[in-house]
Amino acid sequence: MELKVKRIDIEVGGYEVILNEEDAKELGLHPQDRAKIGIKGHLITAIVNISQSMIKAGEIGMFVEISEKLNVKNGDKVRITPTTRPTSVEYIKKKIYGSKLTKDEIYSIIKDISEDNLSTIELTSYVTAIQIRGMDMDETEWTTMAMVDSGETLDFEYTVFDVHSIGGVPGNKYAPIAVPIAASLGLKIPKTSSRAISSAAGTADLMEVLTHVDLKINDIKRIVDEVGATLAWGGAMNLAPADDKIVHVEYPLGIDPHSQVLASVMAKKKAVGADFMVLDIPMGPETKVPDEKTARKYAMDFIELGSRLGITVEAAVTYGGQPVGRAIGPALEAREAMMAMEGKHVSNSLIEKATDIAGMLLELGNIAERGEGKALAKETLKAGKAREKFLEILNAQGSRGIEKSDDVPIGKYHAEIHSPEEGYISIVSNKALVRIARTAGAPRDKGAGILLNKKKSEKTEKGEVLYVIYADSKAKLDEAVKLAKMLKPLQIEGMLLERIPSYKA
Amino acid sequence: MELKVKRIDIEVGGYEVILNEEDAKELGLHPQDRAKIGIKGHLITAIVNISQSMIKAGEIGMFVEISEKLNVKNGDKVRITPTTRPTSVEYIKKKIYGSKLTKDEIYSIIKDISEDNLSTIELTSYVTAIQIRGMDMDETEWTTMAMVDSGETLDFEYTVFDVHSIGGVPGNKYAPIAVPIAASLGLKIPKTSSRAISSAAGTADLMEVLTHVDLKINDIKRIVDEVGATLAWGGAMNLAPADDKIVHVEYPLGIDPHSQVLASVMAKKKAVGADFMVLDIPMGPETKVPDEKTARKYAMDFIELGSRLGITVEAAVTYGGQPVGRAIGPALEAREAMMAMEGKHVSNSLIEKATDIAGMLLELGNIAERGEGKALAKETLKAGKAREKFLEILNAQGSRGIEKSDDVPIGKYHAEIHSPEEGYISIVSNKALVRIARTAGAPRDKGAGILLNKKKSEKTEKGEVLYVIYADSKAKLDEAVKLAKMLKPLQIEGMLLERIPSYKA
Repeated sequence: MELKVKRIDIEVGGYEVILNEEDAKELGLHPQDRAKIGIKGHLITAIVNISQSMIKAGEIGMFVEISEKLNVKNGDKVRITPTTRPTSVEYIKKKIYGSKLTKDEIYSIIKDISEDNLSTIELTSYVTAIQIRGMDMDETEWTTMAMVDSGETLDFEYTVFDVHSIGGVPGNKYAPIAVPIAASLGLKIPKTSSRAISSAAGTADLMEVLTHVDLKINDIKRIVDEVGATLAWGGAMNLAPADDKIVHVEYPLGIDPHSQVLASVMAKKKAVGADFMVLDIPMGPETKVPDEKTARKYAMDFIELGSRLGITVEAAVTYGGQPVGRAIGPALEAREAMMAMEGKHVSNSLIEKATDIAGMLLELGNIAERGEGKALAKETLKAGKAREKFLEILNAQGSRGIEKSDDVPIGKYHAEIHSPEEGYISIVSNKALVRIARTAGAPRDKGAGILLNKKKSEKTEKGEVLYVIYADSKAKLDEAVKLAKMLKPLQIEGMLLERIPSYKA
Repeated sequence: MELKVKRIDIEVGGYEVILNEEDAKELGLHPQDRAKIGIKGHLITAIVNISQSMIKAGEIGMFVEISEKLNVKNGDKVRITPTTRPTSVEYIKKKIYGSKLTKDEIYSIIKDISEDNLSTIELTSYVTAIQIRGMDMDETEWTTMAMVDSGETLDFEYTVFDVHSIGGVPGNKYAPIAVPIAASLGLKIPKTSSRAISSAAGTADLMEVLTHVDLKINDIKRIVDEVGATLAWGGAMNLAPADDKIVHVEYPLGIDPHSQVLASVMAKKKAVGADFMVLDIPMGPETKVPDEKTARKYAMDFIELGSRLGITVEAAVTYGGQPVGRAIGPALEAREAMMAMEGKHVSNSLIEKATDIAGMLLELGNIAERGEGKALAKETLKAGKAREKFLEILNAQGSRGIEKSDDVPIGKYHAEIHSPEEGYISIVSNKALVRIARTAGAPRDKGAGILLNKKKSEKTEKGEVLYVIYADSKAKLDEAVKLAKMLKPLQIEGMLLERIPSYKA
């Protein structure tokens, strides 16, 4: 059948067309069926939508992606022929029915995801099925390698190191400190990070306050060659492109299949050529890892997957019971990380965590003996070498002219939250702090966030500052203060928890 | 935030808007998040999509459904505020994690499905989860009742009967014969049917050749009051509206959760007020029910669900190893059903099946004693009473002036397929016949289809006609013939299957 093109200027994330109901019936096509659309030597398979009124009989509505690919204009004639679904839909059903997939089947699914050949319905069903059915380590390995192969990759002539945190704890700015420490001692670290999705700041958001983070794959290569490390955003490259599309359906459902977490992280590490990697697993009641058993499961799975991919993984289970350091939010965290490197007083938790992880890298890289990495890392940090390397990285990525912590621009507006009573901080809620920081504008407003004056177990007097909320706008500050008063992210108790009266005679 | 409306004339099946990336960031909204959209006292929750270029900052793209509901025009200002997802998304996750849902949770999900409050991603994830996790009979009952309550219902003052086939066998035109038989003896049967999705003809397609089938709920009521029965299409009414939306995601995946099959069928029966129902379960290698065990499971589940809903169900496991009767395709099947009622010679399988099922109805309705229903049904059919009642139904629904089988217009073009050899028909492939009939144009081209001259175990001479393909267009006939030659839906074997030579000395 020949149909007349009617362009529809909407992006739908794949090749989709709309037919009139009459033509669809004539062709035997139902909604979500596939059809081949052809014009002058071009032939593309598209997903069919059906309308009663919007598209007239004899017309074909073409969304942006396909009309650009076929290079058609309104009124052009295209041929349309029904065709079958991609075979990967059969493999998705196989997973629904509970079977293990073969390597070829997984490659076929990941290829179709990367190339936008699957509809939202098919992709969602796949993600739900792997959430429920799970994947064994073979399937996880194949998924990882299929994702690596579907995107760009880097190849270095030297041994490459990396760090990654599975996240879940706010204020986790260990990487901008640990990476320069290790790089200043000669390790090569093409570190890429993500932006915040539901947190107050991803490492990429934080780094963006100080430098450019949207590097292309060649920039990464050049900068690591030159200064030994990057601290970049992973999203500007085309690493494991299937992953973004999978996240697009995971996010609204709030699900995150375990095998997909493993594959997603390790595909990106494999793509940048990592040989050794330290994995940070924050553990705590409000993180992704509530207990030791879960932490061990994560660690073991990452280590095994790493070994299958040729990446030596060491895991660090870290304390996630409250924020790392005292700053939450892009600019506040960037400032705190710089302060740590400048030798200024910052929270011990941050120095300890950053040097623990840097020390593990140094030991993996044989720069330090087993058990001596942390001391070397601390010494390097104290000597100002991490700061020096950090500034080199900022410059190589494209500095914004911020050379010291005092220059970091933070929120114009702020409000102090005071303690209603004397006592000790008994609970610090990660989740409540993140909600308040986000309400104040983080991560979008870089200056917004929270600076904790008190952390767990610390003593407070009545009226003392517990924490300060920063914001770039007065309205958001007011909203955040209102939320803070409702959520009470810090809870205070006297040391005397209960008083048991003496026996009354 | 206030945004300027930009209408987008596309139907998306729910309330959806598009924001510019900048505004979305400002509001903290991600793709698939929810936002409340307000104007002059109207407030609607919509699903958010995000575009970098199509929608400018300060604008909001509004698809047809929401812009019509809010009654806005281009340039109108609307307020937008982020809001949370419907709580039913949490219940969907509960099912993903494998828990049994409560009655309230299921009602909440079904309500959100009927009212288009769930995104395609959320709905797909739900259907995939119930396919994998299953539902017990409580959950199935609640789903059924929630679907009934979300749509229109009928209420009769008298006892109501119904028949339903779970399908899977071609040529299954028992209902247009069984329903008039039973109605002519006084039973009340508001029968609604579906159109073909993947078959060559649904009962509604077949009836549409002879009468109008797109009846509203009041038409059904009136016609059953007047003549005792309908043979209508269920889709023109608003019975169990959640079902259509669920089918919309089941179809492209080719999945059909068992609990959803039960709920979908029984919700529609409950909605039309059925008290007694006969369920046809065709069994055979190429149907939905390959063996006795599966048949028994279907029967028991329908009977139990029926009893919970106050519907007495009796199941008939029927032979589905080859087509029922000899005709496949809307007009050919309509003609064959009329021939059966006119007392003309038709395949025994059709007469037997139709009178078996009519007999069960008569026994359920106490019109015949147990064991005597079939004889009464046959007698009624022979006496021409079914034909008389059938013509009454055609007229009541809006006759097309076809009063006898000879008047049914069948495909203008036809091609005979001849036997390449002498022998016996050993295999008749349901699936191959359906593919050929559909290629010839069925169900869309009403005259298209297949008339079998030979069925299983029958003898054929070399060159004898095996079957005739009908089509409304020459091109489709040629395609169907080509396919028939490839698929060979009828296979012939000599009686001599193997010849074992004598022992050679």
